Amino acid sequence: MREEATAFVPGHITGFFSAHPDENPTKAGSRGAGLTLTDGVEVTVEPASGDESTIVLDGDELEIDPVSTVLETLGVTARVEGESDLPLGAGFGVSGAMALGTALAANRVFACKLSTNELVTIAHGAEVQAGTGLGDVVAQAHGGVPIRLEPGGPQENVLDSIPARARVEYVSFGELSTADVLSGDTETLTAAGQDALSRVVEEPTLLSFMYASRRFARDAELLTEHVSEAIADVSAVEGQASMAMLGDTVFALGTGLSDAGYEPSVCATHPAGAMLR
Amino acid sequence: MREEATAFVPGHITGFFSAHPDENPTKAGSRGAGLTLTDGVEVTVEPASGDESTIVLDGDELEIDPVSTVLETLGVTARVEGESDLPLGAGFGVSGAMALGTALAANRVFACKLSTNELVTIAHGAEVQAGTGLGDVVAQAHGGVPIRLEPGGPQENVLDSIPARARVEYVSFGELSTADVLSGDTETLTAAGQDALSRVVEEPTLLSFMYASRRFARDAELLTEHVSEAIADVSAVEGQASMAMLGDTVFALGTGLSDAGYEPSVCATHPAGAMLR
Repeated sequence: MREEATAFVPGHITGFFSAHPDENPTKAGSRGAGLTLTDGVEVTVEPASGDESTIVLDGDELEIDPVSTVLETLGVTARVEGESDLPLGAGFGVSGAMALGTALAANRVFACKLSTNELVTIAHGAEVQAGTGLGDVVAQAHGGVPIRLEPGGPQENVLDSIPARARVEYVSFGELSTADVLSGDTETLTAAGQDALSRVVEEPTLLSFMYASRRFARDAELLTEHVSEAIADVSAVEGQASMAMLGDTVFALGTGLSDAGYEPSVCATHPAGAMLR
Repeated sequence: MREEATAFVPGHITGFFSAHPDENPTKAGSRGAGLTLTDGVEVTVEPASGDESTIVLDGDELEIDPVSTVLETLGVTARVEGESDLPLGAGFGVSGAMALGTALAANRVFACKLSTNELVTIAHGAEVQAGTGLGDVVAQAHGGVPIRLEPGGPQENVLDSIPARARVEYVSFGELSTADVLSGDTETLTAAGQDALSRVVEEPTLLSFMYASRRFARDAELLTEHVSEAIADVSAVEGQASMAMLGDTVFALGTGLSDAGYEPSVCATHPAGAMLR
């Protein structure tokens, strides 16, 4: 057994999605597209000193259900410590990153001898069961600008991606509950998500992704006041911005938010998926 | 139209494989596993100044059939310039890297608006048609330590990977012709490749990959004298080495070749697939 292992998992901003529930959490998931980010989460796993697993994120001990589920599925008791560049609950896939990073790092520490697809399946299933996300984990395992053509874990899904890189700016105004939105009526949302996906499949470029994302946010009636205002401000300076699904968060390509007078966090798309350090 | 674009494509050492021909080059390919490398090829594409495409690798103008096919498929006339850390024809997937890098960079320069899977399909098909490789392109698009469970391009294949990173050392003694081996009797080779794949699927670790690769090289009767001797030298110092398929090249994990008194090139597994700069 190793003393500890660390994995980095990129953040993931979903631009648009449609929800595809299934009784089997490895088949359930979402279609959609998003940006993986160089801002992400470093997850370090070491064997627990006592009988119980503990989870720490940015110094605070807390419950993160998908992380507990991953540890239980692997049959290990561990101390998991995450350090995040990104806020939790604001649409950056931090819970998915914690789950996936835990799977990768625990596999190494405890010599579980599972493959990448098996680890991603466990983390995806744990996230779906917890209701904290539907597509972040598979996108974060892929990296780049993933397009989720078919939902589910790696045995079920079909992924493609937009062959592009970009500087990304973001401002987060606060949290939105993914679980609340996903437990409500998702019919309008799913129709809007399918429209957006058709557009991006037709033309897999960053510009069409941003256009489809803005239209999705409006048609699915998810825009918050803050985000709506910021998107208008960025448009006024000829920039491209949209809303991170699901958070009270606006993101823009290039210098869109800076140009509009905001003081955004700055990162870039991440060319690789989750990786061991 | 952009003036130019550059893509980096990691090198790829195949440890073992089985050949799966098909009349349709996007279905043809190989099963197997390998290491993608931080040593790779930078491919820069710009519009051709005249009526004909030109291909340059490390300063020399030459014919690389899969690159010409990629340009023809995209319907563009370009100057392609590659700079490689790796020797051509020695089992590092340089021709695949040139084909895939050309597809990614040309898509950007000429605004072809294709997705990553479409570009990988074009490069994979071009490589198969040319007979220069069967699995390098899809592995190089994936990154890490890819396991090719099912052959073919992205629409057809199934990939997994070994969740690990490693320092990699290699010494190349010369070229072997992939086309010659693949045009001969591949029955023994394919049986040995399937055995090796079963072993790595059962236990997806670097150690089992190296073991399966060594056994494959012996059972498929592909070992050269130089490589055979080097593998024995590395084993004698408790290291792990095997043969790059297909080249007169030995590779080792960690400091295996250095410890055995060789003066190897040193790189590492590449955590990401091919990427635009």
